[in-house]
This record gives sequence, C-alpha cells and structure tokens, in this order.
Amino acid sequence: MNAQASDQAKARVNRILNSDAFRQAAATLAAEHDRTVEDIITLTEIPAPPFKEAERAAKWFAMAQAHGLTDMTIDAEGNVTGLRRGAGNGKLICVAAHLDTVFPEGTDVTVRRDGTKLLAPGIGDDTRSLAVLLAWLRALDAAAIQTRADILFVADVGEEGAGDLRGMRYLFTQGRYKDRITAFLTIDSPEMEQIVTGGVGSKRYRVTFHGPGGHSFGAFGVVNPMFAMADAIARLGRIKVPTTPKTTFSASVTGGGTSINAIPNAVWTEFDLRSESAAYLDNLEQDFFALLAEATAAENAARSVVNGKITYTVTPIGNRPAGQTDQTQDVVQSARAAIEAHGYRVHYDYSSTDANIPMSLGIPAIRIGSGGRGGRAHSLDEWIDVEPRESIRGMTAGLAAVLAVADMI
Amino acid sequence: MNAQASDQAKARVNRILNSDAFRQAAATLAAEHDRTVEDIITLTEIPAPPFKEAERAAKWFAMAQAHGLTDMTIDAEGNVTGLRRGAGNGKLICVAAHLDTVFPEGTDVTVRRDGTKLLAPGIGDDTRSLAVLLAWLRALDAAAIQTRADILFVADVGEEGAGDLRGMRYLFTQGRYKDRITAFLTIDSPEMEQIVTGGVGSKRYRVTFHGPGGHSFGAFGVVNPMFAMADAIARLGRIKVPTTPKTTFSASVTGGGTSINAIPNAVWTEFDLRSESAAYLDNLEQDFFALLAEATAAENAARSVVNGKITYTVTPIGNRPAGQTDQTQDVVQSARAAIEAHGYRVHYDYSSTDANIPMSLGIPAIRIGSGGRGGRAHSLDEWIDVEPRESIRGMTAGLAAVLAVADMI
Repeated sequence: MNAQASDQAKARVNRILNSDAFRQAAATLAAEHDRTVEDIITLTEIPAPPFKEAERAAKWFAMAQAHGLTDMTIDAEGNVTGLRRGAGNGKLICVAAHLDTVFPEGTDVTVRRDGTKLLAPGIGDDTRSLAVLLAWLRALDAAAIQTRADILFVADVGEEGAGDLRGMRYLFTQGRYKDRITAFLTIDSPEMEQIVTGGVGSKRYRVTFHGPGGHSFGAFGVVNPMFAMADAIARLGRIKVPTTPKTTFSASVTGGGTSINAIPNAVWTEFDLRSESAAYLDNLEQDFFALLAEATAAENAARSVVNGKITYTVTPIGNRPAGQTDQTQDVVQSARAAIEAHGYRVHYDYSSTDANIPMSLGIPAIRIGSGGRGGRAHSLDEWIDVEPRESIRGMTAGLAAVLAVADMI
Repeated sequence: MNAQASDQAKARVNRILNSDAFRQAAATLAAEHDRTVEDIITLTEIPAPPFKEAERAAKWFAMAQAHGLTDMTIDAEGNVTGLRRGAGNGKLICVAAHLDTVFPEGTDVTVRRDGTKLLAPGIGDDTRSLAVLLAWLRALDAAAIQTRADILFVADVGEEGAGDLRGMRYLFTQGRYKDRITAFLTIDSPEMEQIVTGGVGSKRYRVTFHGPGGHSFGAFGVVNPMFAMADAIARLGRIKVPTTPKTTFSASVTGGGTSINAIPNAVWTEFDLRSESAAYLDNLEQDFFALLAEATAAENAARSVVNGKITYTVTPIGNRPAGQTDQTQDVVQSARAAIEAHGYRVHYDYSSTDANIPMSLGIPAIRIGSGGRGGRAHSLDEWIDVEPRESIRGMTAGLAAVLAVADMI
C-alpha cells in the first residue's frame, strides 16, 4: 500500500519548488508565521460546537474576504466558500478545512500557552487548518502565483460526530459547485506523514426494544425487552468480519429500565458499524438488521406475549459513506511528492473525514495535514506546537501539494 | 392452600368477639373514626422517604406515648417501639406498621379529598396502618382490655425498596427484644382478604462489566464489556425456574458507555432474583454467579485481551430473605378466624413484607390489612376510602386478630 510517488508527480513538484514564485510564497509563510499563530488563536477562541458553527463561519468569511477570495458565500448548510480563480482550464479543485469541533456549548476554549505549545479544545482538529488556509491565500497573493485550475476554498460545517458530514454532503450534492469539483483535499489536523486515501464508512443506529413491562415477580414469564436486546448484542458479537477491508462493529452505549422491581418497558443500545468498503458495510448492515429481527422473534417465542410482544425501532444516528481514492490518482501522487520533498515519510491510511463524501461519489479526494505537531484531539487537553521551523515546514509542504494539484503556472 | 381456620381458633375468636370488653373496644373504634382519619392525614403529610423517616417517627413516637405505651424508644436503626404490657405469660408478640414510603424527597404529600376517598402518596401503604395502631391503643385502653402476652407496637423503618427491611433486620437481630418475639403481625396496606403467610425472598445485584475500552474502529477486536454483559443476560434468560415454589429473575435496568465512537470501559445492569423458597433462591443465585463468570470468560476468549481483560464487579443492592409461616400456626389460624368472623373471604398469599425477616428466622409471622379500601399503591394517585362502615369493619377485625394472638384475658 506504500507506492512511491510517480516520477511524473516528482517532476511536477520539483518544478514548483524550484520556481521563484513558490520560493517567495514559502518566504511569506515563514515571515507571517506569527500572524498565522494569531489567527489560530482568534479562531480557536470562537466556539464552534456541532450545528453551532455560525459565529466562527462569519469570522472566517470576513478574514478570507479580506484576502481577496471572490464569489464568497455562506451556503444554505453553513459552509463558507470562496474562489481563487485560475487561468481557466475548466477544472476546479476544492481545498477544505472544517469549522466545527467535537466540544459542546459552554466548553472553555481559551487558548493556554506553554512555550511554543498552545492548548485548547479544537485547536488542532481542525482550527489550525482554517488559519493555514488564510496563510496560503496571503502567500499566493504575495507571490502572485497563478494556477490553471480554479481553487475553491471551503470552511465547512458538520465534520464531527452528529454533524455526519452534512457540510460536505451539501457541497457535493446540492451546492453551486456540486458537479464541477475534480479533486478534493481536506486539511485536517496537524500530522503531515499520513495521507488519507480511504474513507471509512459508518452506519450508526440507536435501537430501542419495547415490551409490555410489568412487575418483576408478579408478571414474571412475560417477554422482557432486555433479553431481546442482549440476544441481539450477543449475535452481533458472533459475526465474522474481514480484516481487509477492515470492517468493525461496536455496541457502544446502552440504557433503559426504570426500577429493579420492574420488567422494563423499553431499553436501547447505540451501535456503530464501519468498513473501509461500502459493499462490506452494506453486508454488515444487512446482517445487523437480520439479527435484530431474529433476536426479537426468539424472545417472543421464549416467553409469554399475553400482555404484548417485543417490538423494536431503529433510528439512524449516523451515516458516513465509505470510499477510496486510488493511489495512482494525480491528487494522491502530487500530495505525496510534495510532502516527501519536504522530508516527511508518508504513509497511506483509512479514516473518516470530509473526504469520505467525494470518495463515495468517485471524485479523487484525500486528507493531508496542516503542519506542526499536536495531540490529544477530542480531549480538553488538545494541543498543537507552533514551533516555527516544524510548523512552517508542514504549511509549505501542504501549499506545494495544493499547487501541484491545481497545476501552478 | 386455603385451609379453614381451626375450630380451636374459631372458638377463641368467638369468645373475644362476644366479650363486653371487646364490644366496648369496637365501639370506641367506631366512635373515634374521625380522629383516626385525622391521624392518617397528619401522618401522611409528614414525608417519609426511604432512609428519611425520622420526622414521621418522632411524630408517631409522641402520639403513641400519649396513648400510654411504656418503654418507648427509637432504636439505633430508627424504629419506634413501645410496649403494652400483658398479664405476664412470658410471651411477647409484635405488631408493626412501616413508616417509610417509596416516594423520594420533594414529593407532594398533601392529602386530597374526594368524598370519602383520600388521595396522597403513601396514604395506604402504609400510613393508614400507623394511625390504626394508635386507634387500637385507644380502644384497648377505653375497654381496659388485658392480654396475657406483652404486645410490642412498632412503627418501623426501611420496608420499601432500598430500605431492604433494615428496620426489621435490626429489630430481630440486634434490638432489645430480638430473642423474645414469639409471633409477628405486620399491618401493611388496607386489604383485609389477603393474609400473607409466605415471604418472597429477593436478591438484587448491580453487575458492572469493565474492559479496556478503545476507539470503536481503531481498537476493534479487543474485548467489549457490552458483549460479556449481553451474553450474561442472554444466559439468565435461558435458565429454567419452577413455577412452584414461584422463582423469578429479571434484568431490569441497564446503562453505560460514553460515545458511539468508543468501545465502552464499563456497562452495568441491575438484576432482580426472587423466590418463594430460600433454597430455590440460593440455587438461582449460584446459577447467576456462575453465568457471570462464564459470560466474562467467553468474551475474554472470543476477542483480544492485549489491552486488558473483561472483569466484573457484583454489588448487592437488595437482600430479602424468603420464608414461610405454616398455615397451622396459631398466628395464622387466629388471624384467619378473626377476619373471617367479620365477613371477609380470606386467602393466603406470598409477598415481600416486613414479615420476611421473622419468617426467615422461623418466627411465626404474617401480614394482615389495616381495613378500608384502597389502590394505586406506589403511584402518585395512591388512594384509600375511609367510608366509615368498611373502614371500621376492617380495623375491628384486625384488632380481634391481634387479641386472639395476644391471648386476651
């Protein structure tokens, strides 16, 4: 899975890296690094919980507009989009970072400093990337760089958790550019070594099992939804899934019942099904639906239904399509060559990112990093290190990747 | 199971009912019925949640003391006890009603009236009985009735739910009368037709299954405590239990897990095991402990334990011993004869009441009713009807039962 970058891609990247224009752009990234750090802090300190990204979106809109993006809009889903027009070869590539964090309203998002380390919820995933997009815009303008393709810059909503990729879904299925995007890069989290070329698909369900309930002693012998649910979970645990393409399941969260004295009326579990393969995910989902029916029927056969049967309701709580970008695709080769040229050892990986949506639609798409180091994403101790050398190296590699894909003139 | 009252018991009861003294006592119950209703309301409107019976206990203490009980104390567990001394045949019988209700702090316990119906949480179970004990004391004193046995009147704590019979447990295993009580009657809820001669035993456990947790996709393949728990519940559901003695199990309340993304670190379920037979309850408990170990071992064998094994902790949350009072016992025969003499059709039943504790210790014990009609116990719409004829009939029958057991002179 670790194909080398093609000679063609390496050549294209070398031409870019050796150009005066790119050198000037890289110098701008370095010279304005303090400003980029300020932008990271400014954006991080505007809370952006799932479904509540509007304030941060408005701020990013204003910042990007000041940097000369045209046709700027906030679409119906809440994504901020702006164009940097190319010379016009008809192609349009999209470069995105997500506005939302996993953190709920009320989370303290004040940035704490510890030397070159900055700590705050969401600072690496994915707020740093929002500021890096702005830094790239400034660098491109300072160097007067032109590309053949139009570049659509996007600060999107709904990447995390219950957001369920709603921003990307809108962009690729309803937005004004939906049929024009020919390649997609999401800049997500600091790590430069990992290029995500596979989108792990997931289907998530809350399943509630209902029954007549009753007194635990007096009504003993009637169906109990806890037994149906337990049987369903146990059956799920016995399913055999392949390691390649990696396919997984989890019974993750559960609850229900009201009193130790009572056969419960309702109990529920939340299930997470995932696969690197859309086909395997569909198979797993079918098996899952079948075992829900089997477990429920088994309980209705095992105990009395005189007061009513066990039934169940399935509520979808997440649906991220699986997808894959072939490693021979230009977007993969260009990004790899650009990043390796900056001294990183690249590996390909599967993950669940905004790139899942274009991948699932057959549009070449990858995730690359925003540079610097970081850790503890999704925790209150999330941090990034903005030590300039490493931070600038990553940003420069990423810009080279974008310019290789956008066909710098 | 519906043996008739013995001729001997009938004769003893007839002697009591035909005595001038008992007629006078019965007349006092009737004459003072309004005062008894007032006492019911006064006591009901003092909240007595589990473990918070102290205020109601203090009130009942004061009321009973005014009625001439001697040696009144509130013991270390919170039970109010007072003696009505007999002529001294060395016997001591105990007549109890419980102070506590199932309702939590903050529940509105204001009594509403609807004709002769009184509505309030806990009014029938078991506050009416507390007032009936006081009415009996007044009637006994008004008629100057003497008994051979001492009668220990008790307003006890901890009958409901998590109280776990703590009041009775203390009285019979640590209290000052612990080795002297030769017969026990709990006056619990209005219904006169039912005499409880069997104590349903219960053992209740919260079982928490622990595991290493991990990302639902990244750590897939490691043990998941949800699978161990589901397997345990499913195994419980397959246990065969006898209908006689009635033996039951329930998985009643469940919870755990933190995120759809995560294999949970911990999940738990609360289990309720019951039987009319102490031996069958022990057997069921042993089977239950075995299946917890089996299900946990099965999960540790089915998936990877590289990050840690599934373990489980068992927390007892309830333990009520099973027990039985033989229907030939004097306390059963006397109560039956006294109650049937007042026109009720008596049946014997199993339940879980304060009588479980003495039953489990081999002390003859029963539950009888406090009279009147009522319903919806354990609900906010709990009610009793204090229509005088029916209310007084029940109280009179109960007093006759107590006097037959205490050997009225």
